[in-house]
Amino acid sequence: MTTRQDCITLDQQDPLAACRDKFALPAGEIYLDGNSLGAMPRHVVARMQEVMEKEWGQGLIRSWNDAGWIDLPRRVAARVARLVGAAPNELMVGDSTSVNLYKALVAAVRLRPGRKVILSERGNFPTDLYIAQSVAEMFNLEIRYVDSTPEDVLAALDDSVAVLMLTHVNYRSGRIYPMHEITKRAHDAGALVVWDLAHSAGAVEVALNDANVDMAVGCGYKYLNGGPGAPAFVFVAERHHKEMRQPLSGWHGHARPFAFTLGYEAAGGIESMQCGTPPLLSMLALESALQVFDGIEMRVLRAKSVALTELFIRLVDEKLAPYGFGLASPRDAQVRGSQVSLTHEQGYAIVQALIARGIVGDFRMPDILRFGFTPLYVGYADVYDTVQAIAEIMHSGEWNQEKFITKKAVT
Amino acid sequence: MTTRQDCITLDQQDPLAACRDKFALPAGEIYLDGNSLGAMPRHVVARMQEVMEKEWGQGLIRSWNDAGWIDLPRRVAARVARLVGAAPNELMVGDSTSVNLYKALVAAVRLRPGRKVILSERGNFPTDLYIAQSVAEMFNLEIRYVDSTPEDVLAALDDSVAVLMLTHVNYRSGRIYPMHEITKRAHDAGALVVWDLAHSAGAVEVALNDANVDMAVGCGYKYLNGGPGAPAFVFVAERHHKEMRQPLSGWHGHARPFAFTLGYEAAGGIESMQCGTPPLLSMLALESALQVFDGIEMRVLRAKSVALTELFIRLVDEKLAPYGFGLASPRDAQVRGSQVSLTHEQGYAIVQALIARGIVGDFRMPDILRFGFTPLYVGYADVYDTVQAIAEIMHSGEWNQEKFITKKAVT
Repeated sequence: MTTRQDCITLDQQDPLAACRDKFALPAGEIYLDGNSLGAMPRHVVARMQEVMEKEWGQGLIRSWNDAGWIDLPRRVAARVARLVGAAPNELMVGDSTSVNLYKALVAAVRLRPGRKVILSERGNFPTDLYIAQSVAEMFNLEIRYVDSTPEDVLAALDDSVAVLMLTHVNYRSGRIYPMHEITKRAHDAGALVVWDLAHSAGAVEVALNDANVDMAVGCGYKYLNGGPGAPAFVFVAERHHKEMRQPLSGWHGHARPFAFTLGYEAAGGIESMQCGTPPLLSMLALESALQVFDGIEMRVLRAKSVALTELFIRLVDEKLAPYGFGLASPRDAQVRGSQVSLTHEQGYAIVQALIARGIVGDFRMPDILRFGFTPLYVGYADVYDTVQAIAEIMHSGEWNQEKFITKKAVT
Repeated sequence: MTTRQDCITLDQQDPLAACRDKFALPAGEIYLDGNSLGAMPRHVVARMQEVMEKEWGQGLIRSWNDAGWIDLPRRVAARVARLVGAAPNELMVGDSTSVNLYKALVAAVRLRPGRKVILSERGNFPTDLYIAQSVAEMFNLEIRYVDSTPEDVLAALDDSVAVLMLTHVNYRSGRIYPMHEITKRAHDAGALVVWDLAHSAGAVEVALNDANVDMAVGCGYKYLNGGPGAPAFVFVAERHHKEMRQPLSGWHGHARPFAFTLGYEAAGGIESMQCGTPPLLSMLALESALQVFDGIEMRVLRAKSVALTELFIRLVDEKLAPYGFGLASPRDAQVRGSQVSLTHEQGYAIVQALIARGIVGDFRMPDILRFGFTPLYVGYADVYDTVQAIAEIMHSGEWNQEKFITKKAVT
């Protein structure tokens, strides 16, 4: 049996232990929802005050040059690029994940004229499918939905597929798709691949160029801790830059945005993926927040993430056997992201009872209890205390109260 | 001749004089570039600190419900709607102006199948034309460019026009298009009209529903003072809600965004114009900033705006006659927005010399000196001091220095 003292020892040996103090977590709380909204690095508060008072308040329009706002998307992109195995000139930050996916999907289908299928999986995050449906309508394509195993996806690849669109780490199960193999097999079939890294970037090792990925999008507000609704990112491999054409052809993607020419002329590199003026306050917060990754290698983060989720599953096995939980995430750590999802028919109420104890996970319909382990600010004793709390909640029937059972709107 | 004392008297009588103290302007500066980036309302600093520390830092994921983030776009939209003569359920805030224009234009051309033309004017703001070019390519349409007078626009309306896309107040000249008449004539020709209110909202009276406008977009960071890159807005008249379909079909525009259904199902009203998760820090700053409009009627703002630009032109006539300036804005206040543009072959250097004196306007190629008069924080004596400074700069040759003549990147 694993004891709490074992976990405290692991925390003491943790090379990332000092990172936790960089985050402003509520006192006494265990926050396991960084896969939905990342916690706030403390230093961002002072930075934003400086942005407000000095850059906006006093600098005003001059800050485009004097505070470097004009280069901000590129600066932030370079920070994110390192975390996902991309070159700085292959990644751009701005807009939402959904909007970036629209740009990438349209650019991708335009690179495969004549092919009629966008291939994806039913369990993909819904907004990805909704965007694909719009692109399919625009270009008179069909969407081929397959079940979620890598084998199902590979079996559905054929020479009608223009683009394979997948999310690298599934938002419900936390399962990781084998990016290298699937990308290679898609290329063998003549298709391009667009990966959604929403639950990968900052949490698992991603090697976009090593895997020869064509395009990718990802989220700034989950494991990147960029703040609520932080700008998203889009990656396009350099080999596609010359031919790619995205449809949101706003002035910030123009070769000379301030020349004010009559006709659109794409900037030519990844800059072409920009559209309008970015939401600078949000983007400056994201830039600042990314500093917590300075000097940290993704393989170190990943090692701790794996250790945390392994520990969680081991403790679930040890302590929760009598209570009817299922494991919705892979047991094999190699194909599991930085979350563990359990199933339970009373999942909603159990999550509410945990939140009332200051342990914040989330619930996904119909029966998923989702726990995200952000290695920057979650420790081993937190994992122990979480499983212990679940055991107590189940043993005592604490979950079975009106206030926990009554469903509120889930965000 | 108008004296400085005359202007001070006008300031003393100004019903909006107290608004100036609500803004954090640099000491001693006259800021005439609010049409590019609006000044910061002071109270937004404290509000953003609260957002950071309390809503993000402590509330974390709970803030979607507890701090009302989930309703934020709708709340901000209601504030903007009042300023442009729209109903609260006809306007949505989020994304950039360019992205919103793409949504609106696609929705509009889909409502006019069979018609082959998007009509606009050559002098429109470039990003609007760039977005129209992309939409035209997608739908196999052509763009008909006309010259900038209302007469040119009206003469080009015929039954091939699907959508007329115009900017209400021209960014260079400040000329106002007659929204009511042009919209009516476009409807008579069977076309829809999409107006860009970037230089209108918060500065001139706009009556979208009174003018029977179909769709509109606008900017949050100019006269609305929402902060750098603040989210933009999009308006769709209620009569089009049932039929409209926009292409950026992200989950936030879904009827049940958290039901996670396989197929996209539009929310049905203006909510359908949403796409991904909005940049909340930027949007919360915009919401807070809009409080300076509380209790202020647009006709009062407009009256002061007209008085300021009339005074500016009168002083230019009185003081700058010897120096070769032209007036690029209409002399008729009824068709002039909240800016006055002058022309001068040394315009760039003159603007730099003014900035060095703490008077901030901007320059637009090839020869436009652009002065924006935001009635919330610009006073009559500011106008006097500006023209007096230009006169001194011209009289002394102060503009003719290496440091002013050498062009830097213009943003």
